[in-house]
Amino acid sequence: MSYPQETFHRTHFTPGSFWAKRRAVAWQTTLPAQLAILKSTGRYDAFRMKWHPVYAEGHRALFWDSDVGKWLESACYFLAERAQDPDYSRMDKEGDGLIDEAVRELTAMIGTAQCRDGYLNIRFTVVEPGKRFTNIRDLHELYNAGHLLEAALIHHQHYQNDLLLSPMLKYVDLLCETFGPGPDQIHGYPGHPEIELALLRLYERTGHKNALKLAQFFITERGNPNGPQGQHFYLTEAEQRGEHPAERPWKDASELRLPYWYQQAHQPILEQQTIEGHSVRAMYLLTAVADLVRISRSSTDVRDCEGYKTACERLWNNMVDKKMYLTGGIGSRSEWEGFGVDYLLPQGWDEGGCYAETCASIGVMMMAERMLQLDLDGKYADIMELALYNTVLGNMSQDGKEFLYENHLASCPRRPMKRESWFDCACCPPNVARTMGMLGGYMWSTEVKGKDVTINVHLFNPATLKFQVGEHTVTLQQRTNWPWNGTVVFVLDAPSSLNITIRLRVPAWTVPFEDGSRVQIRPELPAQSISKSYLMLPPEYTSQHVKKEIEVSFSKQSMAPRLVRPHPYTSLDTVAVARGPLIYCAEDVDNDWVNDHFKSTAISRNAHLQEIVQHNDFLDEDFLMIKTTGVKLNEEQYSNRSNGVFPGFAVTQPVEPQGEQVPLILVPYYYRGNRGGRGHMRVGFKRSD
Amino acid sequence: MSYPQETFHRTHFTPGSFWAKRRAVAWQTTLPAQLAILKSTGRYDAFRMKWHPVYAEGHRALFWDSDVGKWLESACYFLAERAQDPDYSRMDKEGDGLIDEAVRELTAMIGTAQCRDGYLNIRFTVVEPGKRFTNIRDLHELYNAGHLLEAALIHHQHYQNDLLLSPMLKYVDLLCETFGPGPDQIHGYPGHPEIELALLRLYERTGHKNALKLAQFFITERGNPNGPQGQHFYLTEAEQRGEHPAERPWKDASELRLPYWYQQAHQPILEQQTIEGHSVRAMYLLTAVADLVRISRSSTDVRDCEGYKTACERLWNNMVDKKMYLTGGIGSRSEWEGFGVDYLLPQGWDEGGCYAETCASIGVMMMAERMLQLDLDGKYADIMELALYNTVLGNMSQDGKEFLYENHLASCPRRPMKRESWFDCACCPPNVARTMGMLGGYMWSTEVKGKDVTINVHLFNPATLKFQVGEHTVTLQQRTNWPWNGTVVFVLDAPSSLNITIRLRVPAWTVPFEDGSRVQIRPELPAQSISKSYLMLPPEYTSQHVKKEIEVSFSKQSMAPRLVRPHPYTSLDTVAVARGPLIYCAEDVDNDWVNDHFKSTAISRNAHLQEIVQHNDFLDEDFLMIKTTGVKLNEEQYSNRSNGVFPGFAVTQPVEPQGEQVPLILVPYYYRGNRGGRGHMRVGFKRSD
Repeated sequence: MSYPQETFHRTHFTPGSFWAKRRAVAWQTTLPAQLAILKSTGRYDAFRMKWHPVYAEGHRALFWDSDVGKWLESACYFLAERAQDPDYSRMDKEGDGLIDEAVRELTAMIGTAQCRDGYLNIRFTVVEPGKRFTNIRDLHELYNAGHLLEAALIHHQHYQNDLLLSPMLKYVDLLCETFGPGPDQIHGYPGHPEIELALLRLYERTGHKNALKLAQFFITERGNPNGPQGQHFYLTEAEQRGEHPAERPWKDASELRLPYWYQQAHQPILEQQTIEGHSVRAMYLLTAVADLVRISRSSTDVRDCEGYKTACERLWNNMVDKKMYLTGGIGSRSEWEGFGVDYLLPQGWDEGGCYAETCASIGVMMMAERMLQLDLDGKYADIMELALYNTVLGNMSQDGKEFLYENHLASCPRRPMKRESWFDCACCPPNVARTMGMLGGYMWSTEVKGKDVTINVHLFNPATLKFQVGEHTVTLQQRTNWPWNGTVVFVLDAPSSLNITIRLRVPAWTVPFEDGSRVQIRPELPAQSISKSYLMLPPEYTSQHVKKEIEVSFSKQSMAPRLVRPHPYTSLDTVAVARGPLIYCAEDVDNDWVNDHFKSTAISRNAHLQEIVQHNDFLDEDFLMIKTTGVKLNEEQYSNRSNGVFPGFAVTQPVEPQGEQVPLILVPYYYRGNRGGRGHMRVGFKRSD
Repeated sequence: MSYPQETFHRTHFTPGSFWAKRRAVAWQTTLPAQLAILKSTGRYDAFRMKWHPVYAEGHRALFWDSDVGKWLESACYFLAERAQDPDYSRMDKEGDGLIDEAVRELTAMIGTAQCRDGYLNIRFTVVEPGKRFTNIRDLHELYNAGHLLEAALIHHQHYQNDLLLSPMLKYVDLLCETFGPGPDQIHGYPGHPEIELALLRLYERTGHKNALKLAQFFITERGNPNGPQGQHFYLTEAEQRGEHPAERPWKDASELRLPYWYQQAHQPILEQQTIEGHSVRAMYLLTAVADLVRISRSSTDVRDCEGYKTACERLWNNMVDKKMYLTGGIGSRSEWEGFGVDYLLPQGWDEGGCYAETCASIGVMMMAERMLQLDLDGKYADIMELALYNTVLGNMSQDGKEFLYENHLASCPRRPMKRESWFDCACCPPNVARTMGMLGGYMWSTEVKGKDVTINVHLFNPATLKFQVGEHTVTLQQRTNWPWNGTVVFVLDAPSSLNITIRLRVPAWTVPFEDGSRVQIRPELPAQSISKSYLMLPPEYTSQHVKKEIEVSFSKQSMAPRLVRPHPYTSLDTVAVARGPLIYCAEDVDNDWVNDHFKSTAISRNAHLQEIVQHNDFLDEDFLMIKTTGVKLNEEQYSNRSNGVFPGFAVTQPVEPQGEQVPLILVPYYYRGNRGGRGHMRVGFKRSD
């Protein structure tokens, strides 16, 4: 059992802590608010399989199935966690009833929505039954199925019945029959991956071999240029619909990019050199691929897949090194909601494009988590933490009611920083909700081999991990003020009959102590063994310190605010501020002099950064604001009309900006947009020197 | 008479000078080479109005009419100039015969290609006669007509017959009848402007009032939201074709841009705030608009148009300040061959997009030239010179045989620096040829009011201007080694009965002398009067120095190499080298260590720039190379895997690049790609500090 979706409940978040507060908001406010929107928009009742006027508007409601599924999934995580809380009997359960009732009702509806042969999809049952499985490239049937299957898995885990799992298993049987390499099967794969990762989880949960085979087929067949009728499946599928192959809208697209890169189906995955296309599709696909590799290592039902691990690493590296924003956001191109060329990372819409879809950063977390299972390397956890604490956390308003679809690094007049309560394409809000629900499963992972137990700590946060090994209970408690403070105190409780190894991530952005060590442990650890950024506390050590505090600390410098510049190849002349895992930004709320979305604001490469403790009244917690000084560049000073030169300005000596100095107040990126204001926000500022 | 297309022959380029050499190549090599390609591709014979296989391939040959027209136009400029050369009788006229014969033959063909009612367009006579004027938004009928009309005007001026003008006048009559505000007319305007500027020139040449009215209608009606049937004309025209309004390929296009911005028809021109869309269309349109304003100032046939001057200025300023490359190129978006958002100016294809179409920079020259007629302001001439000496000149190989369509500032693997002998869309090569032909008309302009004569010198170049004022002859000779040296010697010859004022442009990039003056004149000018960067030599002065050398010099520092940085709002961390009007670049031919298109090459903001005289054997002229030192950045040094940080690298102190130092040799941008090599080229380099 390794999936966050299954292990989440082993984590008890310490009440009143950073994530506990936010998860409480998710439970109390977000889930009910999203439920209300599901109802008001018609999604809630969609599985009654009646006509809804929106079905006439093209494909607007195409994946309502998944909106419902993801909300249902979110709800089950929270219900399950609460039900296992030792204080459950004393908890205020009014909300539970509302949520539980909705889950039961939706489950019942979904069950009755199924066709006789197992097919379960709203649009192609209610609206166009004859078009079932005729365009799996575009029309989200398998995507919907995957999300419903994920909902069914947690539903089953919590409710311990198969009211939702049973219909989904019947649907899976139909899918396994319909798709595959056999002569009467469709040799195809979905445009939007999701079903693959769900089928793999089903296999792991139930041993469903056909589900594994189908997931493997979808993954290995993807991008095959010699598919059905000796050509790419999407071509064949389109011809069967009587269409001409899609015209590409730009004359350069065929030169720069092979067709179907949008869906990462331009080549077999093993041959893909760079990460391209729609970023959510890419992340869900590679999450599944990584999981397939993991499964192949211990299952005889899967042939050797290590080549796919290399592919995942190659694509991960390309993404993180050359196509990821400082905030853990991915995708600069709104045109296809995905990746641009290497190093093209403008901060906002009016500067060349920024997209950074919420679901994509959740996808980054998903892929990172699976890669950690394959290879315990801190680089994956560092990025997982980066995405979580910046783009994913910052997606939701702190009152839990509003969200972002795109997560820009700079606002502009046409795109001021502003959240919305819902979106017509509603994938992001319930994705955030379910991530919050299963968050405990991202914090740590465990490996058990007989008496040898390993706990890998990926994220630092006040919480307690509690799990069973045979008849024994193991708990590991964390106490910390992360992300504000870099000290973490662990307390392990485990029987002496077990050999406990704890591996702790050493964030790569930490600064060594004076003696060169990256981390200090108290009581002292005789010899520090750090492998791929995980420090190992071996059984010899842990057994000596059961129920005693083990203090882990990073240098004070590690948590000092620092200036961050983009890679020179981005050609971006900007500098941003970070502190620990947090990226900072400026908002007009704290800088009311701003009137141009901070476009003219420049800071020095040697800017002095001062921390100031602030209190967040809404969440009743302290956080750190960073104060510095900037200068407002005078746009005219550099224009050719002022300088009398060409486009561009001559520099024979350093140019002293003529503009006024301004105080610049920065807050964590996740915090933006929670206190009203005019929507002016920026992460990276111009450099004044 | 103010058009370069008419006044060109008054300029005699001094043999062996910078432009004379290149124009000689254009005459000797380019014109015949282009003629050969016209013949081999089928364009030459297209006016025989027979079927050609290419007509079956969509719209590939849609504007062959204009390819022929522009070549014909080019030929006439050179033939006319040569015929007026005092040395003509002694010149080698073999080439003349070939060219003249082609002109005559083409003229005859065009005459016979006309329909009875005056219509003259290949495609909609030969291929789809029923589709005439059914899609003037897209199908180039009026564009073709405009270029043929321009050819007819110079044909008439040189040959002094109306063999070409007469059919064009008949066509113009048909156009004036077909388009306009009348009840039975089409209330529309062409998608690709060109006819407007041609019609205005026809009016100025012949007093053709209907031509003026039609041009004015096209300009004032453009973008009218309350056009025929109470909506935008292009919408109505599309509906009449039975089409649905064009789907926009990106979901954000309708949010960011109003429809028909591509053709600058999204709003009436008077309301347009920024320059948008296809850059050649924009330039041809605004050239016409500026000319309409000019005409309105002295003609009673046009109502007041000064509002259009304001519009031109606004759009010019937006273009030059925020959407123009250092090389005078415009248009960063290959997707629509035009303008992107403000300050989005990546250098090449793999860095976010660079287009800078040749025809667009020629268009910049055209618009600048017309703006100078409205408002003698050096800023227009500075940009005209910038575009001419960099993008336009550099478009053609020095042997006159090859061209560029796009003029990037940096090459990349998919787009190495390489010219071609022709393009399927062949607008650029003959555009360069005709610009070379009429180049003398850009150098200076004259105003005559009775006995008061003004000569405005826009460009410096060894040449003699000679024109008649009544029975008098006025000549003004320039001697200079521009662009290598900033001294220009003028010799005026004019009768004392005329009052001659000479206004000389003071380039804005010049550096003042120690005494603060921008330019020095010898013999001394009692009081320097510089208005909008034009220094005035009043009649009191010129009359005293007839037939004597007047030496104009700029400070030595003016011609020193200088480092140029883009506007901070571009967020580009680059620095380039310029000298005088020339922009410099590096090529692999001089820097054979390069293997990455100079992407990793960085120079210091204080880089030492050393000039070295080099000899160009092909043209037998000296030029200046610039030598400096750069450093090769180590891509890995800044990657997150090396630094162990997030995407981006932390800078708590200046980062010393780890790479090796390299000698960096720079040559003028116009000179690139003439000596073989691997096609690695770059203008702006990273900054190493």
